Amino acid sequence: MNENKKRIAVIGATGYTAHELIRLLAGHPQVSLVAVTSESEAGKSLAEYYPDLVSAPELVFQHLSQIDPGGLDLVFLCTPHGESQRIAPLFLENSVRVIDLSGDYRLRTGDSYRRWYGQPHSDPEHLNQAVYGLPELYRDVIPRARLVANPGCYPTGALLALLPLSRAGILAGNRIIIDAKSGVSGAGKKPTPRTHFVEVNENISVYNAGHRHRHIGELEQELEAHTGGRHSVVFTPQLVPINRGILETIYVETDRSTEEVLEILQAAYAEEPFVRIWPDGLPDIHSAAGSNMCHIGAHSESALRTLILAVAFDNLIKGASGQAVQNMNLLFGWDETLGLL
Amino acid sequence: MNENKKRIAVIGATGYTAHELIRLLAGHPQVSLVAVTSESEAGKSLAEYYPDLVSAPELVFQHLSQIDPGGLDLVFLCTPHGESQRIAPLFLENSVRVIDLSGDYRLRTGDSYRRWYGQPHSDPEHLNQAVYGLPELYRDVIPRARLVANPGCYPTGALLALLPLSRAGILAGNRIIIDAKSGVSGAGKKPTPRTHFVEVNENISVYNAGHRHRHIGELEQELEAHTGGRHSVVFTPQLVPINRGILETIYVETDRSTEEVLEILQAAYAEEPFVRIWPDGLPDIHSAAGSNMCHIGAHSESALRTLILAVAFDNLIKGASGQAVQNMNLLFGWDETLGLL
Amino acid sequence: MNENKKRIAVIGATGYTAHELIRLLAGHPQVSLVAVTSESEAGKSLAEYYPDLVSAPELVFQHLSQIDPGGLDLVFLCTPHGESQRIAPLFLENSVRVIDLSGDYRLRTGDSYRRWYGQPHSDPEHLNQAVYGLPELYRDVIPRARLVANPGCYPTGALLALLPLSRAGILAGNRIIIDAKSGVSGAGKKPTPRTHFVEVNENISVYNAGHRHRHIGELEQELEAHTGGRHSVVFTPQLVPINRGILETIYVETDRSTEEVLEILQAAYAEEPFVRIWPDGLPDIHSAAGSNMCHIGAHSESALRTLILAVAFDNLIKGASGQAVQNMNLLFGWDETLGLL
Amino acid sequence: MNENKKRIAVIGATGYTAHELIRLLAGHPQVSLVAVTSESEAGKSLAEYYPDLVSAPELVFQHLSQIDPGGLDLVFLCTPHGESQRIAPLFLENSVRVIDLSGDYRLRTGDSYRRWYGQPHSDPEHLNQAVYGLPELYRDVIPRARLVANPGCYPTGALLALLPLSRAGILAGNRIIIDAKSGVSGAGKKPTPRTHFVEVNENISVYNAGHRHRHIGELEQELEAHTGGRHSVVFTPQLVPINRGILETIYVETDRSTEEVLEILQAAYAEEPFVRIWPDGLPDIHSAAGSNMCHIGAHSESALRTLILAVAFDNLIKGASGQAVQNMNLLFGWDETLGLL
Repeated sequence: MNENKKRIAVIGATGYTAHELIRLLAGHPQVSLVAVTSESEAGKSLAEYYPDLVSAPELVFQHLSQIDPGGLDLVFLCTPHGESQRIAPLFLENSVRVIDLSGDYRLRTGDSYRRWYGQPHSDPEHLNQAVYGLPELYRDVIPRARLVANPGCYPTGALLALLPLSRAGILAGNRIIIDAKSGVSGAGKKPTPRTHFVEVNENISVYNAGHRHRHIGELEQELEAHTGGRHSVVFTPQLVPINRGILETIYVETDRSTEEVLEILQAAYAEEPFVRIWPDGLPDIHSAAGSNMCHIGAHSESALRTLILAVAFDNLIKGASGQAVQNMNLLFGWDETLGLL
Repeated sequence: MNENKKRIAVIGATGYTAHELIRLLAGHPQVSLVAVTSESEAGKSLAEYYPDLVSAPELVFQHLSQIDPGGLDLVFLCTPHGESQRIAPLFLENSVRVIDLSGDYRLRTGDSYRRWYGQPHSDPEHLNQAVYGLPELYRDVIPRARLVANPGCYPTGALLALLPLSRAGILAGNRIIIDAKSGVSGAGKKPTPRTHFVEVNENISVYNAGHRHRHIGELEQELEAHTGGRHSVVFTPQLVPINRGILETIYVETDRSTEEVLEILQAAYAEEPFVRIWPDGLPDIHSAAGSNMCHIGAHSESALRTLILAVAFDNLIKGASGQAVQNMNLLFGWDETLGLL
Repeated sequence: MNENKKRIAVIGATGYTAHELIRLLAGHPQVSLVAVTSESEAGKSLAEYYPDLVSAPELVFQHLSQIDPGGLDLVFLCTPHGESQRIAPLFLENSVRVIDLSGDYRLRTGDSYRRWYGQPHSDPEHLNQAVYGLPELYRDVIPRARLVANPGCYPTGALLALLPLSRAGILAGNRIIIDAKSGVSGAGKKPTPRTHFVEVNENISVYNAGHRHRHIGELEQELEAHTGGRHSVVFTPQLVPINRGILETIYVETDRSTEEVLEILQAAYAEEPFVRIWPDGLPDIHSAAGSNMCHIGAHSESALRTLILAVAFDNLIKGASGQAVQNMNLLFGWDETLGLL
Repeated sequence: MNENKKRIAVIGATGYTAHELIRLLAGHPQVSLVAVTSESEAGKSLAEYYPDLVSAPELVFQHLSQIDPGGLDLVFLCTPHGESQRIAPLFLENSVRVIDLSGDYRLRTGDSYRRWYGQPHSDPEHLNQAVYGLPELYRDVIPRARLVANPGCYPTGALLALLPLSRAGILAGNRIIIDAKSGVSGAGKKPTPRTHFVEVNENISVYNAGHRHRHIGELEQELEAHTGGRHSVVFTPQLVPINRGILETIYVETDRSTEEVLEILQAAYAEEPFVRIWPDGLPDIHSAAGSNMCHIGAHSESALRTLILAVAFDNLIKGASGQAVQNMNLLFGWDETLGLL
């Protein structure tokens, strides 16, 4: 093993985002995955649990309590919200950097956390220091962060599409409608009636429509922080019978033409390795699945003052683990695309 | 065979709507399917072409030219738009009633037809006499019609959800956003790159977004006719990897609460056999697939002045062949639900 | 309500087979569903639990303990094996006929039950009296039965394909290989890691391959009873990403040609309403899904002494609830196809 | 561009195997893709045609006639059988090595080709020189080959599972039954009624069952060449509603136990990077999809003298393009796993 490789652990390593993260880390030239934890699978080997991993390191799931922070450079927390805020301090206090994939450190204040997650935050000190890990937005500050809050899947795509337009001042009104369709891996690995094959297959179902889904909190927070104005998001998440991928169809008010909109988006992302603006047409999920790319297309019906944006990306990669690796690359000062192409 | 049964033919009987129609007619107590036509399959037996039909009549596909209108009471045209307008007159002139499932007779004027279908209408005389076959709207006039234009799938659900609210005057603004997801049978049986399994599976794709899809014509026409005001529809049809079923998520402006909206809808449809208003929650496609029901749910974010309507129905039944049978029942003065429960 | 209708209850009415059964009973002209039970959903209305049922009776789930056998003519047990044998006696002792959809009464002896189900049978008395409800085989004795053991899904198709050939003496050797593919509704409604959408979708998995699956017991039992000789079944059940339907590909040894095989099958089933022999080609699942039909096709490679049989049917209908209704029709002396076409 | 990189072209670059191949080549450190051809898409850019390719080279599809063999080290032919035999000579005569992914050069004699492909072979000279590119079998001779015939997808998995057992002499009889299930990408990209989404979805269909599928020719040829004895393969290919992946369930006669079988397989493949023997249980498609691995499991019912083998692999990778890259690595003397982990 390369002695200079950074030593990494994945905490809560049995879910879908952890699976994807381990796959990405196994192909990353500068890191060494040295520990994975799971309370339920402790003692089982990684290779046995994930038979599809071609080059998985020879690791056995450990209990979190068995992990020695001393030997680590970075941990990824794939634990649920509520748990991450109890685990992050253990590592931060031992000078181990943390990238948290849960929602625990995305909101800037304890009040906001309580509003959207329905419980007080138990680690307000670090909440205050966390950086929202959308590299296209916070590339300058992420390298100095000790704790990165990896964004939610839905906000990742929506923010990338909306921010340049809002900053350019071409959005009228303050209402944003997001009609989102997500693959089932986004609903987690726990078997529930909602994720039973027969219930999902040949079906589309809406959940938490309106102004209720937790991701709205971070979405409105970042829109306000970067545009100066308040926006209200009407959000309709829908479960569709596919394994992975998200398509967000976004409706905003503007009188600008498709060409003007595309020009703004193209200018904003010309240098970005992971954002692709479609010169015409709207992206589908196949364009994005399996990669860390976020594809954005636009169609403006200016006579009706309505702009339709379509944003497609892989919920497990750009929407979770790929973005987490992108953040890790920034933290360690590496090329942002390392291990992601 | 019951001598009193009405004698029916299906023209263009090899597509998905024809398949569903033949299945429904086979279970209908008052009709006898006496002829089916197909130019490409002429000579093949119905049982061989549709091995899943349990009680199909012993028929062989004929060429249209072999059909004698004399012995028929009614024909269903499952031919594409452009063809139906050439075929309908052959039957109408022989006093055979016609239910056309294509878009050829849905628009009220030749100008409107030319605007949305990009070609002149070759049968303006009957266009003028056709009745738009949405039974919940035109139940009074359908019984006297000679030619019924069966509505498009998307407008069926959208009109049922929107008309009572527009009539009640609770919709602010005139812009309606319809984010529609359709099963692939709605795209027709002809093999194309767009309907190849590998392209559709694990994917969602948008087509003709904006103010371009032909169904917008009939949708805006009927909204205006029944509410007195003009509405503009922004429409985003999306292909999802399921065989049948449509979910339309509709966004309109209002300050009314969910309860007020549901009360209006409930009052409008209390007596309707094929419309079900959800007292809470939003319907999914499973609720509707396989039946002639249209399920409607509502969630209002009145603080954001936005009402979300979710409309679920089976594109091949209430969106096509079931509604056609419903129209036939009205034409012949039978119980509207005959053969549909 | 028709006073002459038979009064029916469904016990354990929340699973997939119960759902299908209730749908079929709602369309049956001679029965009235008067009670449904569920220990977990007691108090909830049938219409609320099954929003897709168009004409569901106005019933509320009750606890089993609330059911008065006195007013019933027949109960269907949709309870799991192990439970049915505790519930059936409660009704049989009150002169209520029972059709059990579990595996509890399919094997003829307690020893056999213990061998395949790993536990002693608690109701050996009725086990002894039960009739194996494959109508094509036991049509003569079912009408006099008090307790019908509805066959397992896999044995239904395999027996229909194999019995005529075995009786005709054209099968060499005694080994039968059944490679079976089943839709996920066959695995039950309980959410498990095995039935999670993401695990099933884009996958095929084998379970219990060899001589282990419980259905082998009844399959070998009936083959022996009706052919005089012992057969050994190698059985490979596989879960495929579809909701419903089974395709069994069966391999047996013979030197007969395809034509000879088809002639035997055609002769055996010429008068059967629910078995269709394909004159050429092999059936697919679409041919059978949604109906009570069992489709059988054959291809013999006589030079290799191997016959391939393909059997397609709907696991929830001919493989469960449709066949249960067929049995009910026989029990009450009605036309066997009533409510099933 | 690295001057030392090998210069590669892909001929017929618009199908599913070409897509996968281009993706793999884009991530391969030692090659440079310098040309792609397509007669139908000539003039369109690779990036436009494949929007999901993250790091596709800046190439435009050319006509085959525009390609100068002079500057190439190797071409991959993704052309259909019948075409490859007309194209391969053009490159071979210019000292460009060829890996053909069609069936044109897999059979050793023109007679055999005529038997299985129904037409004479137009390039018998090179047919004679081609090496069958199953690296686990022909690793010693592939490096010296000028023309490699990349194996068919079905034979790849079946040969890897069967050869060690046949060589070990533990298979009784000479009959092999292969019940194969394939994802739809294996049926090609051309839209046909058979690949229409609605026809495939919720379905399983058998095609060419018996001793008819072309892959039987190469399968029996290689079994005979490497075991000395003749084997007859009964083969049932089945189309299942997934995009990619193959599961072959194989039935052979033996009296050996599962443990004995696994020991032989384990010994044969202990050093192989792309074959994994399951110590217990049978592999599913998820284990293999997305990688170049072939997973093999075994369950022997020795009392019934039947061995069940389950073989899972990705039809587009180990079954086509991954194996082609593996062959390229051998041709150029590189580590066989380069670009494949």
